[in-house]
Amino acid sequence: MSVDYSSMCPRYEAAAALLGKKWVGLIIRVLMAGPKHFGDFRCQLPQLSERLLSERLKELEEHGIVARTVLESRPVRVEYRLTDKGRDLEPVVRTIQEWAETWY
Amino acid sequence: MSVDYSSMCPRYEAAAALLGKKWVGLIIRVLMAGPKHFGDFRCQLPQLSERLLSERLKELEEHGIVARTVLESRPVRVEYRLTDKGRDLEPVVRTIQEWAETWY
Repeated sequence: MSVDYSSMCPRYEAAAALLGKKWVGLIIRVLMAGPKHFGDFRCQLPQLSERLLSERLKELEEHGIVARTVLESRPVRVEYRLTDKGRDLEPVVRTIQEWAETWY
Repeated sequence: MSVDYSSMCPRYEAAAALLGKKWVGLIIRVLMAGPKHFGDFRCQLPQLSERLLSERLKELEEHGIVARTVLESRPVRVEYRLTDKGRDLEPVVRTIQEWAETWY
């Protein structure tokens, strides 16, 4: 097996560390069903506090995984959706989940 | 999409958090090539300190991902290998790596 360890290390670890943060996997799974408003997360993940939800959405936005759009409505509403980079996480989240379900 | 959020959460997060720990992905990849002695890791991952390597191998053993065998040799040697649970991580580590290479 040929592995370029030097190049694997920082990128793999940045990705895996983000995916391992509390609630990140679940927020991504909720968004896989389609764009969501802030309140939709509160409905689907009632145990997640508003403060932590905001924080995680901001981190995911900074990583280019989630896009945030302010809708021109009254009252103003904010919509969150996965970017292409975010949608590409589907098999990643799924394989982690499958492994965890089989072995934990 | 039907998602059982309550059951996903703790198991997924335990798995993802472990995989996101520094060096864990690389140690698993080294072991995918076959059983290894302690010194083999030092060769293949020269930037990983002995202290941290011991710590990570112990964690992986506690998670049932790595098995440790003391070989009856002189001097005594210790061999590390992946368990079935550990080998099953191959597609997980690979999809994380592929996503990270594509997007980071």
